[in-house]
Amino acid sequence: MEKGYRIAVVGATGAVGTKMIEMLEETTLPIESIKLLASKRSAGKTRIFNGVTLTIEELVPDSFNDVDIALFSAGGGISKIYAPEAVKRGAVVVDNTSYFRMDKEVPLVVPEVNPAALKRHKGIIANPNCSTIQMMVALEPIRKEAGLNRIIVSTYQAVSGAGAKAVEELKREAKEFLAGKSKDELDPQILPAGSDKKHYSIAFNALPQIDVFAEDDYTYEEWKMINETHKIMEDDAIKVAATCVRIPVVSGHSESVYIETKKEMSPQAVKDLLAKSPGVTLEDDPSQQIYPQALNSVDKKDTFVGRIRRDLDVKTGLHMWVVSDNLLKGAAWNSVQIAETLHEMDLVRVPK
Amino acid sequence: MEKGYRIAVVGATGAVGTKMIEMLEETTLPIESIKLLASKRSAGKTRIFNGVTLTIEELVPDSFNDVDIALFSAGGGISKIYAPEAVKRGAVVVDNTSYFRMDKEVPLVVPEVNPAALKRHKGIIANPNCSTIQMMVALEPIRKEAGLNRIIVSTYQAVSGAGAKAVEELKREAKEFLAGKSKDELDPQILPAGSDKKHYSIAFNALPQIDVFAEDDYTYEEWKMINETHKIMEDDAIKVAATCVRIPVVSGHSESVYIETKKEMSPQAVKDLLAKSPGVTLEDDPSQQIYPQALNSVDKKDTFVGRIRRDLDVKTGLHMWVVSDNLLKGAAWNSVQIAETLHEMDLVRVPK
Repeated sequence: MEKGYRIAVVGATGAVGTKMIEMLEETTLPIESIKLLASKRSAGKTRIFNGVTLTIEELVPDSFNDVDIALFSAGGGISKIYAPEAVKRGAVVVDNTSYFRMDKEVPLVVPEVNPAALKRHKGIIANPNCSTIQMMVALEPIRKEAGLNRIIVSTYQAVSGAGAKAVEELKREAKEFLAGKSKDELDPQILPAGSDKKHYSIAFNALPQIDVFAEDDYTYEEWKMINETHKIMEDDAIKVAATCVRIPVVSGHSESVYIETKKEMSPQAVKDLLAKSPGVTLEDDPSQQIYPQALNSVDKKDTFVGRIRRDLDVKTGLHMWVVSDNLLKGAAWNSVQIAETLHEMDLVRVPK
Repeated sequence: MEKGYRIAVVGATGAVGTKMIEMLEETTLPIESIKLLASKRSAGKTRIFNGVTLTIEELVPDSFNDVDIALFSAGGGISKIYAPEAVKRGAVVVDNTSYFRMDKEVPLVVPEVNPAALKRHKGIIANPNCSTIQMMVALEPIRKEAGLNRIIVSTYQAVSGAGAKAVEELKREAKEFLAGKSKDELDPQILPAGSDKKHYSIAFNALPQIDVFAEDDYTYEEWKMINETHKIMEDDAIKVAATCVRIPVVSGHSESVYIETKKEMSPQAVKDLLAKSPGVTLEDDPSQQIYPQALNSVDKKDTFVGRIRRDLDVKTGLHMWVVSDNLLKGAAWNSVQIAETLHEMDLVRVPK
């Protein structure tokens, strides 16, 4: 009988870390032990795993001495320092931050899309950006069938993508706004980006900034969608444009996606294809007002696709609406799924 | 000295009607009298106009016997019946509903874009759909300068576009959700479309349906953006695709707009052009996190444009973020502005 794995969760108290623990309760991965790691400040707090109370330990390099798989989600700075320490001690790292994503030595993996990339891992595997993952799950079956020339995506991203404190900020602002405070009295502290200079209210607003601004007046979030798509689909020729927007939703990212395929595909053919594609739930029946909704996606592992229709002018153009729980498929579930896939492919070891 | 006009507001108690009264307080249009009309149910209620208390009267055909300009915003069914009655009695009608918009005999006007169309009016002028108007204000200067081949728009529309009761629904749902009710207990009654079969929660959600579904699985709202753009710009060759989405914002529609021009224009040239274009406020400085926001647009008459940047693959491609108060430029202000323009062009009369 196979031995179970010794798993560590780094960032166990965060929005994603909390969901990682839940996903590990549901995984098919054989587990021998779970170690929860966080900053000194959170050490000593407890979490329940499958009915057992676990105490959170302070993250130090030697935390990984007895770990086989470490799931990181505690910020890029932590991954930068501690992921190599974990690998040095023999743990395979699945990193949910952006720190290693564009590193040529690090596979960037959505298990439904490019599991083969895992074979090249040298100890660290990167989990893509939440908004990229769900788009890849929806588009990869179409790319395989008909090729993909172009993607134009506008996102409607949930606040939990910015962390648990941002969710508290949204709820506090919403309560105060509903109690009669004006927009200028809401005192935002985190959004649109905790590290940026100015902060704006998200309650009853839409903010066209996620992460900070970078080259060509695109935000990093927009660049992530562009660069990660090229890396995951292994095709830099796909034209990708993204506009990333935060809206007052707690969890569940929605995306308005326009694509141009190489070969013409009817909307019905796309629906038939996606209905049988891994990780996708087709929700598409306008006659019954069936389409994906952020609120309905919460706590579900799949990516929901609907509103599939042909462009009225471009023969190979298609529009669709793609929704998924950003904390699950966009983060915690994809990370655990990578660990499951590593196990299935017998790749849970650091190559020499 | 010029005589003032006798103005009627039809639907005076609605979300838009209320704003029409405010806009008439601020207009340069010479006004002799204001008559407020609504259903029998609202007759007898009062509203303040420039410090004077006005009593709402029941709408009947003879309401228009002594009216020069009638502003309608009481639903398509009311416009269908009463707009011709008003014209018959000598009033010029500015209709904010969709009923007459695609009628070949009826000009569809955004004063900054196609004022000349007013010359052809036969008594009724249609006010375009809110989401179309702000897009036209932002794009017309670019079309004139560089031509326009293509528009792909994804909207982030405010709830007040669905009326005052929909705003109450959003606020009620938000309060209940924040107080701990689950999404299945929110009991939505109006959105996404009052006349449709099913209703969904809008609080902390995003609904990819505005108005009911029509041909090719596009909603009427999406068809309005497509057809009205062709009519207003008088060019059916422009490729237009729209995905219309309701988000939990009270007022202020936002739009992620991608265009392809005929002639290449740099983002800086577009910014310089829009900075001096009528009805536009340029808000575009990523280094200072300056971009349009729905919350900031409320009670402003302009259309705000920012996040202007080049597409990374298509030389003539540009992306931008367009925001305006849907109740003002999207409805009440555009209607009053049409009345002002009719006055300036000496067209406040029903042609024989």
